[in-house]
Amino acid sequence: MTFWQPLPGDSLAVDVQSLAKRRGFIWQSAEIYGAMSGFYDYGAMGARLKRKWEDAWLKYFMGLNDNYHLIDTTNILPHAALKASGHVDGFTDPLVECSKCGQAYRADQMIEDKTGEPAEGFTLEEIDAKVAELGLVCLKCKSQFKNARIFNMMFPVPIGTTGKDMAYLRPETAQGAYLNFKRHFEIMRRRLPLGLTIIGKAYRNEIAPRQGVYRMRELIQAELQIFMDPDTFSESLDLKEMEGKMLNVQLVDMRGSGNFQPISCADLIEKHKLPDFYVYHMLKIQEFYLDLINIPSEKFRFFEKSEAERAFYNRVHFDIEVDLHTLGGFKEVAGLHYRGDYDLSKHQAGSGEKMEVSIEGKRLIPHVLELSFGVDRNVWTLLDVHLVDERTGVLKLPPVLAPYTFAVFPLMRKEELIPVAKDIHQKLRMDYDVYYDQSGSIGKRYARMDEIGTPFCITVDYDGLEDGTVTIRDTDSAEQKRIKLDKIEEIARALATGRMTFSDLE
Amino acid sequence: MTFWQPLPGDSLAVDVQSLAKRRGFIWQSAEIYGAMSGFYDYGAMGARLKRKWEDAWLKYFMGLNDNYHLIDTTNILPHAALKASGHVDGFTDPLVECSKCGQAYRADQMIEDKTGEPAEGFTLEEIDAKVAELGLVCLKCKSQFKNARIFNMMFPVPIGTTGKDMAYLRPETAQGAYLNFKRHFEIMRRRLPLGLTIIGKAYRNEIAPRQGVYRMRELIQAELQIFMDPDTFSESLDLKEMEGKMLNVQLVDMRGSGNFQPISCADLIEKHKLPDFYVYHMLKIQEFYLDLINIPSEKFRFFEKSEAERAFYNRVHFDIEVDLHTLGGFKEVAGLHYRGDYDLSKHQAGSGEKMEVSIEGKRLIPHVLELSFGVDRNVWTLLDVHLVDERTGVLKLPPVLAPYTFAVFPLMRKEELIPVAKDIHQKLRMDYDVYYDQSGSIGKRYARMDEIGTPFCITVDYDGLEDGTVTIRDTDSAEQKRIKLDKIEEIARALATGRMTFSDLE
Repeated sequence: MTFWQPLPGDSLAVDVQSLAKRRGFIWQSAEIYGAMSGFYDYGAMGARLKRKWEDAWLKYFMGLNDNYHLIDTTNILPHAALKASGHVDGFTDPLVECSKCGQAYRADQMIEDKTGEPAEGFTLEEIDAKVAELGLVCLKCKSQFKNARIFNMMFPVPIGTTGKDMAYLRPETAQGAYLNFKRHFEIMRRRLPLGLTIIGKAYRNEIAPRQGVYRMRELIQAELQIFMDPDTFSESLDLKEMEGKMLNVQLVDMRGSGNFQPISCADLIEKHKLPDFYVYHMLKIQEFYLDLINIPSEKFRFFEKSEAERAFYNRVHFDIEVDLHTLGGFKEVAGLHYRGDYDLSKHQAGSGEKMEVSIEGKRLIPHVLELSFGVDRNVWTLLDVHLVDERTGVLKLPPVLAPYTFAVFPLMRKEELIPVAKDIHQKLRMDYDVYYDQSGSIGKRYARMDEIGTPFCITVDYDGLEDGTVTIRDTDSAEQKRIKLDKIEEIARALATGRMTFSDLE
Repeated sequence: MTFWQPLPGDSLAVDVQSLAKRRGFIWQSAEIYGAMSGFYDYGAMGARLKRKWEDAWLKYFMGLNDNYHLIDTTNILPHAALKASGHVDGFTDPLVECSKCGQAYRADQMIEDKTGEPAEGFTLEEIDAKVAELGLVCLKCKSQFKNARIFNMMFPVPIGTTGKDMAYLRPETAQGAYLNFKRHFEIMRRRLPLGLTIIGKAYRNEIAPRQGVYRMRELIQAELQIFMDPDTFSESLDLKEMEGKMLNVQLVDMRGSGNFQPISCADLIEKHKLPDFYVYHMLKIQEFYLDLINIPSEKFRFFEKSEAERAFYNRVHFDIEVDLHTLGGFKEVAGLHYRGDYDLSKHQAGSGEKMEVSIEGKRLIPHVLELSFGVDRNVWTLLDVHLVDERTGVLKLPPVLAPYTFAVFPLMRKEELIPVAKDIHQKLRMDYDVYYDQSGSIGKRYARMDEIGTPFCITVDYDGLEDGTVTIRDTDSAEQKRIKLDKIEEIARALATGRMTFSDLE
């Protein structure tokens, strides 16, 4: 069972998939029962990698303002809330079903696959016409399709014993933040900007999930909703940070001419009329990907969505895309959406609860700037981008993201070496994720750590017993250095936090 | 809207509920839409407290063995898996419905409320007889009940466009671990014990949710499933740790005589015939609650379930209970279940996938020891137990669990003080959760931190500017001491990790 079919001869894509399963990162859920399309489990390494990514994301984006907070809200939401948000009526995809075997397909995707052109936003009539024009038939049995119809992608969940209280699994985490805005505004002493973050599951009954973790029925999102006054939000930001900074941007009118162009923050604000607070957050997102997650600059871009492509309530919308080898090009991993006051206005109308607030005499319904990240896609991105070709099976993760930051080995399974190695393991595991291994050849143990991206391996050998040293090996370069045993905690701290790199070690 | 009705005159219970909402810990989900019974959201403080509890739990229980691993699996599971596990047929409660208004009640609870005796395990006939005998009627309209019926508490979720692929929201996290056992056994190089942990949501369509977060329809579990060979598991444990140790235990035949008795680990093994590995884990759990979470010993006990009360596949089953003021007595917060080979045998039969493994020539289907914790109940326990009466509104949390470990204030909103305070905030937040606040009187700022359980407040004042010191205030005692500014990082580290207490400061 594979996630999807890699291109013939694409050995790296095969490697990433094979590594994901073999080394405990990710695979299809309930596979012993034949699995279900669109559902994936994280194994021991995947869960660690995911947690590390989430922690890094939280630390970075929550650090933007003291009034940004993580909350945790229910996955099941009542009908009334999702009716008001527009999901009951609008969270839909067009569907075509085979008239003979009943197989269902996403109509817009079928058309896009055939024409290579976007088909988002087509009406049902346009779809039927296009299906006829292109002669599209069922991929399984080659029969004709019935007329296209609209399919709501939310999973309904009836609550209670009678089935009359209808609810749904949330299609996005964002709604939990909107529903909790008013209470947090009071608790946090009526200040704007106020940020509410949720990291958690969202559920979408995709018509035809494909492309592995890229389109899932149960997915994980990390979303920050910033509630703010668009007239004063910029005052809380250090706009000077944008001076002289370039962003990788693909504007709508630049499509077709290369992957992206470097454009200065100043130009995006002045020439392209983007709000300064929007561009400031583009910069922060680019810094997160390039500096913290170590995505090579040429694989990263902001992709502007056209008016037809973006939701009508999004005043500005760029996708954040990474060039993924396993998925054949630039793919969306996050989005930055300036949603105006759409969300709170809708919930004010739907619930009758007043969302208008008063700040220093000014009354307004706060606007929302949404930073929306797909966690599964971002974890997959780490495997895709950091699994390098030249040395087989080496995952080069930044220390802050590695499932284990250190491994500790006795060189051989000998009485003199084991207690020293175990003692180092005990000491370091108080503060870091440390793997201990004493079985198999030292070469095999290094290779295992290479595959799961452990940046540093510490080995206790006989020479070291005499002069009070151990060796430390850098996974990136496969280089080794000898360090003093009594300095090990200090050095570990510097390497783990990134305050020192391996090459700084003498 | 309150969570439930506290006893008249019980001001502490009212305080805990009020604090939970006012200070951002927990409240009903979607409350602006009137909320749904059995669903709760965590606010900014609650989410921090929950994450801290989870981190402490993970560090402690994953630390028991190098081969215990956190994984993350889907909330939605296919019919076949839950049919095999027994949930499709057996995850049920008896239900009585009013013949007139249709209101539904859990039949066993109605009987227990009336008689004060357990009614778990009654047949439908026994329930109907008891309902007639006790003259039970609808609490709303006083009409008679229809005959009792069985109600399955799983939420069904049809997958795909036809509704033919039936799945369910998982009723417990454990199944995700069982489904992933075989793959992890291979990845982790065929060793036992192997532990798989999941922290995540579980869903139960409770007939009549009540008692606030104690019985929820969407709950969070932290469960560790230890797969092991019962003949050799003990060899991997340091059984000597049990020497001379006493546990708070309520055995079945001791009920009615006090809350619990102290019984030595040795007696539980020798006289009461509990497996030594089981008692070892009782000790570990007691240490977690008493030493790490700071639950007073007199509020903690193991409550043995009788053969009638426990699931038939549980060979040994004690609930872990804490005496909760807000819920009127000892309540289950966790369970320790020796499940034998029930789970893997069932999935072997259901999936056709072989679960038998071979360890040094011995073939067996591994047994499971399950440590199952209700996260919501444990977070609530922290509020209940640590909100103290004598000084109004002080939450005395251990530093390792506090939403914020430190707060930093300038004494007044003055130009000379603010930059020094902000500098301390910046430095400490690299490693710890730190709250910065410069508005309002210093007394009010201390009171706010008291209410959310911040153990240490650091204040920058004019005296300190001259002699290079700041004051540090201990929330527990409300005592203050003066410390050197250049020692602050060292002291913060010692206090945050618990390597030093406030009274150790000179």
